[in-house]
Amino acid sequence: MSRVALNRLSHCIRSTTYRDAYILRITRRSLSITMSAQQEFHQAPHKLLVIPGPIEFSDPVLAANATPGTSHVSPAFAPIFGDCLRMLKQVLYAEKEGNQPFLIAGSGTMGWDQVAANLMEQGDEAVVLNTGYFGAAFADCLEAYGAKVTKVTAEVGGVPSDEQIVKALESKPKLLTITHVDTSTGVLSPAAHITSLVQKHSPSTLIALDAVCAVASEEIRFDDWGLDVVISATQKGLGAPPGLSVLMASKRAMETFHSRKQPVLGYYLNWKNWIPIMQGYEAGTPKYFATPPVQLIYALHTSLKSITSGPSSLEERFEQHKQASAYVKDSLAKLGFGFVPLDRKIAANGMTAVKYPKGFAAADILPKLAEKDIVVAAGLHKAIASEYFRIGHMGITVTDKGRGDLDKILNGIQEVLKESGKSVSSA
Amino acid sequence: MSRVALNRLSHCIRSTTYRDAYILRITRRSLSITMSAQQEFHQAPHKLLVIPGPIEFSDPVLAANATPGTSHVSPAFAPIFGDCLRMLKQVLYAEKEGNQPFLIAGSGTMGWDQVAANLMEQGDEAVVLNTGYFGAAFADCLEAYGAKVTKVTAEVGGVPSDEQIVKALESKPKLLTITHVDTSTGVLSPAAHITSLVQKHSPSTLIALDAVCAVASEEIRFDDWGLDVVISATQKGLGAPPGLSVLMASKRAMETFHSRKQPVLGYYLNWKNWIPIMQGYEAGTPKYFATPPVQLIYALHTSLKSITSGPSSLEERFEQHKQASAYVKDSLAKLGFGFVPLDRKIAANGMTAVKYPKGFAAADILPKLAEKDIVVAAGLHKAIASEYFRIGHMGITVTDKGRGDLDKILNGIQEVLKESGKSVSSA
Repeated sequence: MSRVALNRLSHCIRSTTYRDAYILRITRRSLSITMSAQQEFHQAPHKLLVIPGPIEFSDPVLAANATPGTSHVSPAFAPIFGDCLRMLKQVLYAEKEGNQPFLIAGSGTMGWDQVAANLMEQGDEAVVLNTGYFGAAFADCLEAYGAKVTKVTAEVGGVPSDEQIVKALESKPKLLTITHVDTSTGVLSPAAHITSLVQKHSPSTLIALDAVCAVASEEIRFDDWGLDVVISATQKGLGAPPGLSVLMASKRAMETFHSRKQPVLGYYLNWKNWIPIMQGYEAGTPKYFATPPVQLIYALHTSLKSITSGPSSLEERFEQHKQASAYVKDSLAKLGFGFVPLDRKIAANGMTAVKYPKGFAAADILPKLAEKDIVVAAGLHKAIASEYFRIGHMGITVTDKGRGDLDKILNGIQEVLKESGKSVSSA
Repeated sequence: MSRVALNRLSHCIRSTTYRDAYILRITRRSLSITMSAQQEFHQAPHKLLVIPGPIEFSDPVLAANATPGTSHVSPAFAPIFGDCLRMLKQVLYAEKEGNQPFLIAGSGTMGWDQVAANLMEQGDEAVVLNTGYFGAAFADCLEAYGAKVTKVTAEVGGVPSDEQIVKALESKPKLLTITHVDTSTGVLSPAAHITSLVQKHSPSTLIALDAVCAVASEEIRFDDWGLDVVISATQKGLGAPPGLSVLMASKRAMETFHSRKQPVLGYYLNWKNWIPIMQGYEAGTPKYFATPPVQLIYALHTSLKSITSGPSSLEERFEQHKQASAYVKDSLAKLGFGFVPLDRKIAANGMTAVKYPKGFAAADILPKLAEKDIVVAAGLHKAIASEYFRIGHMGITVTDKGRGDLDKILNGIQEVLKESGKSVSSA
């Protein structure tokens, strides 16, 4: 019998009120406790989740998400939160003095609001590089906060040309945004190259990288590339359940925030309220503004630990994602599939946007794969939604090769094609 | 060996690439899998968490929070989300046509932003009834969105008088806010009575109840009392981990939203983006705006099920919280403790704000209780922070009497007093 069971049982026997009718029940319950949960937790059987996030989670991450009730200001929890902030800096190569990480209950989408609310003032200009659905939505968000937005929109599957970007920078906008991986197209923007263009043509422009589907699956060099904001979420490359907005701001971004002339529009997302909290947890002295998602922070901590201190270095991790991506894309190409990104060089490494072969539609593939316990995602980009589907290959699906996830996906697709009885030729 | 282990192992043996080096490892790992996680999960031994939230969570709730990776738009998940919205209506007695529930990744605090962003326009008037820290902060939030706020502040431990409230209503403000339980004082506002005052003196005024620390521990009759908004969070009476902003809006509140003249300031919190999502999930047809915290929704579902379909009715649940509160307060009074609320009639049933007896301070009690594995909370209200501490008694600590939590707390406090060697007399 475990210690908690013994404690409960002996307490129950000791106490003299509030219990008589329950002794029998608690005894029975305690006797069924045979092990400590966190040591031997194994998740339930389930369909393989290979959409571009949420992804598959490891047993230790899910066990951490089941951490018992814990005070958000307890000495036990404070260093866990602090470690997460420190490990996030490692994952992003964002170790410069003055970088400020934020972990706030919310979603990836909420990161756009953080940028818009804290860095933009009424009428400020932003250039949004649009490589799909998520670029368009980021622009909507900036406009909702009163920014004047110039959209530089690539053709579907492509990225904006250097000429387009340089032209948009002529007005010296306050902000330029890049969607690192737009999951609606599977396009990977050449972020390092774009930042070098900005630094050459409009060095005062802040650069925000929407890396919701890129952090910990694509290389991001925050300090080296001169990024000012990276936005992410937990449920993709970071390998923890959804529910946290993850953000890194540069010293320059924080200076821009601190020298605002207009007040921030909003309260929950106002960095003024969060700076003391994040700095408090990082220093080991928890402070209260709003209750953090304690269990999810434990889960993120477990995942970040495995990313930063696991058997592979970060460089090896990014290389593993590249290899997995090439393996998936090469295998699918051999089967007759095409891809949404116009060129392999601008295709994400953590996901693949796959065009249906001629004569096939979503109904011929997605439900058949689900019957084989493989969950991929339908198309999202309105212009081509019915023409393609999306496969995620991030996190343990890539790094824990013993799981065999990639072959399970590819074998599943191959079987579905075979069972269709149709012949396959490239679209 | 469990089914998942067998599946994995047999898949591993079948597949022909991406695995050779891993067979040994996966075999070893699979052999250690001895059971299905969700059937037999028991949380790890831990200190008893009895702060005014987060609270203790049941094993099934934590197991649900460890649900494997699941798509937010899957046919498995959609009815879970929909059920949560329906059960929330039950818990709040909010069954009228047109009521709109929202479950959005965030915190309780974020509920204030939802009210301010969606219901208020620049210059709109709000009356904030202030019974502690949380009333003051709600006012700050409303002002951040451009509202003109009149604060009706009670003395510490008290509630505003009817005269104060009626006077504040003379200007027919657009909104009046009530903190149902202000956890900084343990004061329970007489919400039903206050709403009757509003309906008599300014019926056009919308009424928002901040019930973060009240939903599912204090009776709330949304329809009968004529409430327009109830704000809550998951980690208190609702018995699930933190990370969700829980909100119910009346038909009248939604009409106010739909007839706004100015655009909503913000994007993530704009109800326009969420209405189709909530209505989609409620109808069983998931839609995407931002990824919901899937695991936490499963946890909330488990907790709401036990609240709405458990052995006790909702009425009995509220009665259990009243009895537990009386038991704690009576026992502490006998030990020589006083309370922050000036009158038992305005003392919360889900928590107790306890004054230290003469000659005792925080250091004499809180760390000693922690050594006995009992975690209570320090004072929060600035004016009296060093004079009191706070005990939470919500959820399974109250309803699962077999746990013996209340006696554990009371015995712990009694032992701490005894071990201090000091004599105790009322402050």
